[in-house]
Parts: sequence; structure tokens; C-alpha cells
Amino acid sequence: MLVNRQKTVHPLLTLQPQELTITSDIIRQTYPGKDIVFRIIAIKEPRRSLVVAFLEAERSSASLPHVPRCTYVSYQFKGQPEAFEDIADLGTRKVIFHKELPKGVHPPAGTDDMLAVQQLVLEDELVKAEIARLKIPEGAKVVPEAWPYGKDTSEADPKQYQVWFFLGSLDQKNRAHPSSNHFVHPLDFSAVVDDVTKKVVKIDRLPMGDGLYSQSGDDEVYQPQPDAEYASELQPSLRQDVKPIIISQPEGVSFTVEDDQVISWQKWKFHMDFNWREGVVLRDVCYDGRPVFYRLALAEMTVPYADPRPPFHRKSAYDLGEGGVGNTANNLALGCDCLGAIRYFDRWVNDSQGRPEIRENCICMHEVDAGVGWKHTNYRNMRAEVTRSRELVIQTIMTISNYEYILIWTFDTAAAIHYEIRATGIMSVVPMRQGVEHDIDYGIMVAPGVMAPSHQHIFCLRMDPAIDGCNSSTIAYNESIAKPVTKNRNPYGVAYGLESHEIHKSGHLDLDPSRNRIVKFVNKEKVNKVTGKNPGYAVHVSATQLQLSHATSTHASRAEFADHHFYFTKQSEHELYPAGDYPWQSVGGGGVRTWAGRNEKLGSEGVAWVNFGFTHNPRPEDWPVMPCEVFRVAIKPSHFFERNPALDMPASRQSVNKSTLVPKGNAKEVSCCGQKGD
Amino acid sequence: MLVNRQKTVHPLLTLQPQELTITSDIIRQTYPGKDIVFRIIAIKEPRRSLVVAFLEAERSSASLPHVPRCTYVSYQFKGQPEAFEDIADLGTRKVIFHKELPKGVHPPAGTDDMLAVQQLVLEDELVKAEIARLKIPEGAKVVPEAWPYGKDTSEADPKQYQVWFFLGSLDQKNRAHPSSNHFVHPLDFSAVVDDVTKKVVKIDRLPMGDGLYSQSGDDEVYQPQPDAEYASELQPSLRQDVKPIIISQPEGVSFTVEDDQVISWQKWKFHMDFNWREGVVLRDVCYDGRPVFYRLALAEMTVPYADPRPPFHRKSAYDLGEGGVGNTANNLALGCDCLGAIRYFDRWVNDSQGRPEIRENCICMHEVDAGVGWKHTNYRNMRAEVTRSRELVIQTIMTISNYEYILIWTFDTAAAIHYEIRATGIMSVVPMRQGVEHDIDYGIMVAPGVMAPSHQHIFCLRMDPAIDGCNSSTIAYNESIAKPVTKNRNPYGVAYGLESHEIHKSGHLDLDPSRNRIVKFVNKEKVNKVTGKNPGYAVHVSATQLQLSHATSTHASRAEFADHHFYFTKQSEHELYPAGDYPWQSVGGGGVRTWAGRNEKLGSEGVAWVNFGFTHNPRPEDWPVMPCEVFRVAIKPSHFFERNPALDMPASRQSVNKSTLVPKGNAKEVSCCGQKGD
Repeated sequence: MLVNRQKTVHPLLTLQPQELTITSDIIRQTYPGKDIVFRIIAIKEPRRSLVVAFLEAERSSASLPHVPRCTYVSYQFKGQPEAFEDIADLGTRKVIFHKELPKGVHPPAGTDDMLAVQQLVLEDELVKAEIARLKIPEGAKVVPEAWPYGKDTSEADPKQYQVWFFLGSLDQKNRAHPSSNHFVHPLDFSAVVDDVTKKVVKIDRLPMGDGLYSQSGDDEVYQPQPDAEYASELQPSLRQDVKPIIISQPEGVSFTVEDDQVISWQKWKFHMDFNWREGVVLRDVCYDGRPVFYRLALAEMTVPYADPRPPFHRKSAYDLGEGGVGNTANNLALGCDCLGAIRYFDRWVNDSQGRPEIRENCICMHEVDAGVGWKHTNYRNMRAEVTRSRELVIQTIMTISNYEYILIWTFDTAAAIHYEIRATGIMSVVPMRQGVEHDIDYGIMVAPGVMAPSHQHIFCLRMDPAIDGCNSSTIAYNESIAKPVTKNRNPYGVAYGLESHEIHKSGHLDLDPSRNRIVKFVNKEKVNKVTGKNPGYAVHVSATQLQLSHATSTHASRAEFADHHFYFTKQSEHELYPAGDYPWQSVGGGGVRTWAGRNEKLGSEGVAWVNFGFTHNPRPEDWPVMPCEVFRVAIKPSHFFERNPALDMPASRQSVNKSTLVPKGNAKEVSCCGQKGD
Repeated sequence: MLVNRQKTVHPLLTLQPQELTITSDIIRQTYPGKDIVFRIIAIKEPRRSLVVAFLEAERSSASLPHVPRCTYVSYQFKGQPEAFEDIADLGTRKVIFHKELPKGVHPPAGTDDMLAVQQLVLEDELVKAEIARLKIPEGAKVVPEAWPYGKDTSEADPKQYQVWFFLGSLDQKNRAHPSSNHFVHPLDFSAVVDDVTKKVVKIDRLPMGDGLYSQSGDDEVYQPQPDAEYASELQPSLRQDVKPIIISQPEGVSFTVEDDQVISWQKWKFHMDFNWREGVVLRDVCYDGRPVFYRLALAEMTVPYADPRPPFHRKSAYDLGEGGVGNTANNLALGCDCLGAIRYFDRWVNDSQGRPEIRENCICMHEVDAGVGWKHTNYRNMRAEVTRSRELVIQTIMTISNYEYILIWTFDTAAAIHYEIRATGIMSVVPMRQGVEHDIDYGIMVAPGVMAPSHQHIFCLRMDPAIDGCNSSTIAYNESIAKPVTKNRNPYGVAYGLESHEIHKSGHLDLDPSRNRIVKFVNKEKVNKVTGKNPGYAVHVSATQLQLSHATSTHASRAEFADHHFYFTKQSEHELYPAGDYPWQSVGGGGVRTWAGRNEKLGSEGVAWVNFGFTHNPRPEDWPVMPCEVFRVAIKPSHFFERNPALDMPASRQSVNKSTLVPKGNAKEVSCCGQKGD
């Protein structure tokens, strides 16, 4: 554990298992005899100013100030609707804050909760009657999938689940496989379950035609479809011609890890925190000893669906605040999710009893060769100077019901940071009546009777800058603007200028490719000696389509970040989640749009929320499992250095790289002549 | 050589060295005794319909039709301004077409021409006087750099060069190095050279302040600056902590190469053609035997500068049509420009005598692991199915004076094609008077007295589709559009629809992220059995800033592609280059804007021109050599397959991948415990 000279815990220490236990003990002692259901136990984000004082003292080897170490807890009493949020001081072991959440504000659900709901619906008489009606093939198993209920009103509702039903693989051999795929057989009804009573509140017959109210009828039966399996072992044949690529680091890796969370690599140094919600959180990110970011994390995502037919109109997931990257993080097995020399990390979340639950190997870290870093050839003598670029890759993969997100932070040798999202897994589908011609434009048929609706994935990255100092980052944006044609300044009409604008107040901004608008964080107190400009880091992100839901829709009210490419707010340790702390059935009003609306002066205390995503109009090529859709954001130095920071990368040399030559003949012949395996 | 059963040459055979010799012999025989300067010898693009007939006959093993094999030649007589373009039939060995290029239309220049101009200016008395004026440090070498002259009028001009001058490295040790960097010491004058007379026509004193006419004075002398070297060997220190990454394919590679140009890899098969101008040209690109593209190539780029001060206002390079990717292609040495098992290709261009000149190792091809391809985890039993994505990478690197472009085609295992550009090398800089405060907005100071002007790189990819058939591709675009809120169709305001629009006539289109506009090629004669939609491929490219030069500028007239994200024209083997065949000092009028303006019906004969790029506002981090700026375009199947084409990829297994575990301790310790090199 990171313990300083005064024996206090480092404020950026990631949540320790014993802290989970201490916290649940503190809460339990407050309510003797009560059956407490722990929804969340996590580190309460410490006050930024205190942490900064600590970090600056640490950097200057000064006396370290005390930063209170606190957790926040969200809990309920079993069978009761009220939910509470407390803050516990782990030093004094006291509850220092307590509130009851307003009616209609609901904590998230864990996998346990989901599994329990999925169990109970199968025992419900209404559900059983639906299953009986469907006359499903003998031996086929009904598989429920619980989702958050979503929202279509501004009323406070009790916490509910929307449970979809699928049929397990029909083929015996497929059914026996641990990855057998029930998602390809959607059934025509769903159940709404109350979280407190654990009862089915109602059954929704699903629409089966294009009309809003084309619900399945009382005599409709299940129409079997062929299985569609994704497991390699269940494919009729596999490619035999993919020759192995082996990536090795015979001299070891270039990174070091201290205290299981402080990473040093190629002049970068940062804390790798992790929590149930955001997954990896990067903190105190420094390059060559100079701070760059105070805190970087994926803060939320929303996944609204285009299908207007009830009950699908409510489908809009908030996979961080409702489920959590950390809670749903995969165990990343060696050699499958990344190649090379891999360092894994374990982290901890809580179970519903307040006990620590390990997320083993939930983060993997490795280096990759990222192609040519920079090159120049002197054409007079054909002498080339070339270096490689290298990236440090930090990866988490979350599984949220049918779907996967691969979430990747990378650092590179030219002092840039990248955030990459790879969306994969199985698309959410719904049944459609077979034999009816559907000319729908909000989805496609991926099999007869199976429709994959269009949807969007809109992500929000929260960036709290610390450009060359923790308290001196201003947010600005640049535009490249053509100049008017004038005799004295631009007679030939070729001139354009870089215009810079400071963001003075909280608010929002949209990208505009026609102006090459780029948001930057700059330190106005420092000046680059070479260029005379303020040092900064710029956010390079493509303009992507924002949320399409109508401004009057609940989707729009709830996804407070998804209507602009950037939001800017004043730093606050209480404002980390742009759709609010508790998005489950939320009505909005507690997120970034609300905070930005305060019209506050930002000064050097601004935080940026960067919103981007995919509009995913399904392709058959995405079925039954989709190839990764990749999106990348780059955060690059701009006047932060006096010259190319990768200038000191060693030249790329064959003596080091040990590549092999495929002779200029037929490559097939090569394999035959002395190489193994062919 | 690819010779068919009737002993005729395959129409997609890349240019052979003997064909270069035959061509120059044919031309030479036409003009006995004349001193001919050969500018270009290349394969004349055969008529598409003939090639398609050949390919279809080839695929069905039918009798192969004869496709005439022709070259085109651009040449001049030494010391004379007239330029000619002929077409030679290599079968009959006859000139079948001859024309004199109009006055003001100029063939490109080769490296030979550039070097010759750079030699002659040093012997010119006017240049010598300028150098004497500057009082340069003793021993320092003046290095001229010849550029195309650019354009600022619509008049026909004689072919000229603009020669910039630099001072070689000042330090003795630096100067002795083969990569010593003169680009950091720009001098304050330039010379204009006439191509015919090989004489300096005039000297331009360069502007040294912000004003348009702040030219260097008669008594200004050179102000020495420290050298800024990029060669690793000249750095004061290099990183010592970059541990090697070794990429190996112990069982050989997964691709095969026939006839040095037909590549087969993971169901992909295509011809890899190459020419002096476009570099790699992909032809008859098929997946699993189904055609996808008839021809794919980078067609042109333009690099206009933002600096309005004469003579810099003319700076706007067309690096394909003025110089050529093939002409300037690097020899890609093993282990430096790519890692792993590498197959190199040699290709041929002509010298000014019409002789074949090899471009050795000008293309490299290798496979890379591209991360997770698709994944799903069954959260009920935590069983994960994961496959890797793999890419076949085909790379060319061109050096154009100070600058490098890394041009990469990739194919992947999910049936997508990608085009990637990495811009690197040394930025073009100009001198600025020292001690003057410059608050310019069209560039930055990268050293005292050295200004790097802002500029744009706008690229044009030409895509000639063959979606599931060579003669049946229609161009269309999709948009995702929110629907109005109505009681009967969209009561909750969540609906959006995919709207499809066909491109009926030649013209242009701009991207619009707010509508998620995506251009597609579709085959309207076929229908995907599962989805009922036409099979297609979609172009996924971010909207980037278009050319900023004013519509009335010569830059705008000349760069006929750079004002819209897409142009569409009717297929023609005579229309391959969007800024015209001869962009050197061109005035425009012979490029894609002109062709698109014909307002022709496209039917199934449309070609798309995709325009994208960077607005490069220099950073000090880009100096003295810039880290690669990366841009990627994806071309993805859309209803081309009935399911995920990567479903048959074998599962990712540690037994194959052989990754290694970095123990969960301190990584430093790992290196000490039994691993080499630390």
C-alpha cells in the first residue's frame, strides 16, 4: 500500500479490499440487525485542492498534508424501496454524510441482481403462461435477459427491470456448448419486474410488425429459426491459413510498476486507479516530471435505440452508471485479448453484502510497436533516418449483457495520449412476425423473424487538465479561418490564420470540420521559449453524430452530455458523471448540461467533457457477433515541448528488430523451403 | 510475366523494364538524331470494358480476349520548350497517338531534373552575389532545394523551378553526417530557373517580416542559428529504456504472391500494380472470388501554404502529378520501416534517357496483428470467445524534398479495406528577421529566425467500384435522420431512420456529421438474401477541413478536388488524375471538377473521388522532424455478406499466440529474474 511518511494513505491509492470491508462494517454498525443490500462501495473522490497540495508536496519532497480517505456507499434495506448514500471516513471510521436518495432515484444493479431477476421471472405464472402459448420446441431453454427499465416519463417511478426473453440454441450440440448463443432467438414478450417486491409487474407483448401497436397475438406461436453460433468450435469450418504471429520481448518490458498502480514508461508516469463504474481512471498523468492531466476517465455512455414501438422506445442504456465498467470487467486471459509480454492487474469491487469481490486480470497492460514514428530520407544520398513509434496499451473489456466494449488508453513515445473504444459483442435484436414484408428504416432483418434495430453509442470522456501545473489550465479552442482577399494582406487569396478563443464560462461547443475547430488545454502562466505560445495539449476527435432523439424526449433529458461534442464545467469532485450519479430510470437534471448551465467563470478550473460515438445502423456483417468498430481520440502536445519529444528515440535497426525476409519468389515456396509448419 | 494462353500479356501486368526500353526505342526511332528527354513512360490505362471482359473470361476459364498493351510517353527535345504525349502500342510497336501539349502544360520533373537545377543555380552569378552578401560562416555549405514554381496567374508560363536555399549544418561533426540537416537554416532569397534555358530568370528576396513586401535588404547578412539535427547519432542522448519487440512468424506468412503482383491473403485476391505517379494501384480486388473494386489508388494530393507573402503565395505542391510516388519511393530496408516477416517488391520507372530505373524494395508487405477482432463473453459462465483481427499491410514511402508520406493499404480479416496516410519528415520553413517580434497567425517560429508556415495536405483517393460484378456498381449515400414526433409513428421522439439516396449524375457531395452521411457503392442487381438490401461497400471517412484558399485563387482553380469531400464522375480510362494530367504550373480546367461539371448520368458507371486531409498548423513538437500524423479511411462491407465474414477466424489461443506473463510484482524485478538484457 502507498503509505506516506506520516503513515497516511496516498490519496490516489486505488480501492483496497480491506477498505471495502471496513466501509460495510461501518454502515452495518449504524443499523444493527438490519439486512443491508450494498449497491456501491467506492472511494469518494477527494477534494482536488487537497490532492494537488499532496502531489506538489510529494514532488518537492515537502511535508505531506493529510487528505481524508473516504468511501461513499449506496445501500438499501432488503425489501424496502428507500435508497441511501453515505460517506464514511476510513480514518475516523465514522459516517460523515448521510442522505436518503429522492424518490425515483435508484442505485445501479450488479450482475447478482440481474441474475436473481432472471431467475425469478422463470418462476412467475404470467411468464410461464407466455412460454406455454409459444409452443416452443421440446428441450429448448428459455433464457431471460434483464435490462434497466429505461424511461418514458418525467415521473418518479419505482425501480424496475425490463426482462427480454430468448430461446437457447435449438440444436443439441450447440446447446451443450458453454458459448451457445440464445441472442439469435428473441421471443415475443417481455416482463417488467419490480426491484423491491421482486415480482413481475406486467407482461408486454412485443410489436411484431411495423406498426406501433402490432403486438403479438394470443395465438402466436414461436417460429423456429436456425441457430447462429459465434463460438469457433461450433463453426462448420474455420480458416486454416492464419499463420501465427508471435510477439516477444526477450529483454523484458520497458515499463515499471510500483505499488501495483504507479506506472512509469517512456517518460510517462501516472497512477492507474480503477472503480466499479468508470473502470480505469488515469490520475496525475505526468510526462518527464511535468503534469499533464489531473484525472482522465470515460465518464458515461448512452445507447439509445431508434425503434419507436413500445416498449422498445424506452431502450437506452447507460452502461457505466447503471452497470459499471469495473463491475462487468472481463478476466483478460493471457494470449487471447492481447499479444506480447502482458502485465495484468487485479482490482476490487463490492458484492451486495459489502464484501470485496475481486476482478482478476481486469486490466492488461503491454507495449506495442505502432509503426514508423518519424522518418526522413536524404534524397541526395538515400540515407534514411527512421524510428519506430511505440505505445503502452492499457485495456479493459466490459460485457454488458449481449455487448462488449473494449476500452483502451494508450500512451506513445511522442508524448501523445489516445483513447480507443472497440465496440463488439452481440447486437440487441427483437422478433418480427415472419412472412410479413418489412420495409422498416429503423433496423434490418438479420434472420427471418429477427430484427436488429438501429442505435447510437455516445461516449463521454471527462478530462481534468493539469497542463504543466495542477492549477493553471485554461480551456480554449483554435480554428483555421480563411482570410478575406485584400490587396495589402492577402492579394492572392491563399492566406488563412489560426484563431484562438478562450472558453471563459461553463457551457458547450460543437465541432466544426469546416473551421478545423480543435479544443486545447493551455497553461497561460507559461510560455514556450521557442514559439512564444502557451504550452498545451489539444484534443483531436472527429465530429460524430450526436444523439438523434428529439429534444423533448426523455432520452434527451437524461443523456445530458449527448447533444454537444464538448461540455465545459468548473472542477468539482462532486461532478464526475455527466448523466448524473444515478442514471437508472433517471429523468435528468443532475448532469453536465445542468452544471454547464450555471454559466460559471472557469478561469483555470475548467473541466472538459468530450462526446463522440457511433451511429450503428446494423449490417448483416455484424451478426451474430460483430467485428470491432473502432474509434480513437488523440490528445497531443501543442507547444508543450520545444521540439519533437520523440527525437531521442533510438533509430530503428534490423539488428534490434530482427525482422525476417520473405524472399522475392512465391511466398508459398518460402514456407516449403526450410520453415516449419508448412 | 503474366502471359495468357493466347500469349498476350495480362492487361493488369505492372510495367516491365523491357516495356520501358521498347517504348523509348519506338519514340527514338520516330525522331532519328534528336536528343529526346523522356519525362514519363508508363502503361496507358487500358479501356475498362476490355479489361473487364478479360477478367470475366479469366474467371470463367473462357477464351481470353485481346487487350492492346500500350504505354504513354511524355517527352521533350533537349533545350526546347515543346512537350509531347504519345501512345505506343507495344504489340505492333507503333505510335498510335501523338499530340503536342498546349503551351503552358508541363510534364513533371524527376529527381535528376531537380538535382541538375540545384547544381546550376550554385554556378549562377546572381546567386553567387546573394551568397556573398549573406556573409555566411566559413566552411558552411549552401544547399539549394528546387520546387515546382506553383502558380499565381491564369496565363500560360514557361516551365520554371522555384529554388529555395539553405545552409548546411554549421557544426563540423554534424556536417560530416550523411543525414546532416540543412532544412533548419533557410536563407533569405530564392531563385527562379527556366527549365529550357536552364538559367536563373530572377532572384526573389524573401519577406523577412509580417508585411507582404518586407523583403530582405541589400545589407542583411546571415544570422547563425544552432543546428537542429534529427539523426539519432547526432542526438546528445538517446533513450536507453526501449526494450526490443520482436515479431516473428515461425510457421511462415499467410499470404502468397504469384507473378510478383497477384496477392492472395485471407480470401482477398488482387493485382498490385505500381506506377511512377500513384505508386501502388490495387486492381481487380476480389474477396472470396467476388469482385469488390476494379481500381483503387491515391490519385493526387495538394499542399497549399497559408503564407500570403510573395513568393510564398505560390507554394502549393501536387506531389503525385509533379513528382510521383513511384519516382520518389524509398528503398524500405529490412527491419526499419516495418517489423515481422516482410516481402519486398521491386518496381520500375524511367530515367530521362528512357531507360528502366529500378525502385528496389519500393513496396513492403507484411501481416500485423490488429487487436481483438470480435469478442463475446457469456457472463453466466464467464466463458469468452475471442478472435484476433489481422491486417495485410502494403506500404510505400515517398520522399518529396523535405517531406515524407507513408502510404498504406491494408486488408483485414473482416473483409474491410483501409487506406492510411502517415505524414512525417521535415516541415518547409522560411527565414524571418531576428529580433523582430512576430505575432503572425499563419505560422509559428520553430527557432529564432525560422518560421514554419501553416499549410494543408489534401489527398484524393480514386475509387472505381466493382461490387459483386465489374459493371453493376451504383453510388449512393445514407443518412441517419431523426423523425418528427407524431402520435402514430414516433410518440416518444426516439425514432430515426436510415435514408438512402442514389447519386444519379456526376457532381460532388460534402460530408455532414450531423446527418452521419456515408457514401456507399451498391450492386442494385443483387439482393442480400438475409436483409433484402443490395450488397455494397461503404466509405467511412471523417469530415476534414477542405481547401481554405479563396475560390478566386489559383490554388482553388488548380486543386479541382480539394473543395468537396466527394466528387463523382463517369468511369473513363482517360480521367485518372483529379488535378489534371499535368499539374506543374497548371491553371486548372482539366480535372475532376471539370469532369463532374458535365452533369453526366452515372448509372452503374460511377467513380468516386474521396478527399480528406490535415490542416497542419505547425507545433514545435513537429521540429526538426515531425512525428507521424496519421489519417485512416475504412472501406467496409455493408450487406455484402449474410453474416460476419470473420466468424470463421480461429479462436485466439495462448497455445498459438505464446504471449508471456509479466508477473504481478514490480516489472523491474521481472527483468532481473532470469531475463536477458537487464
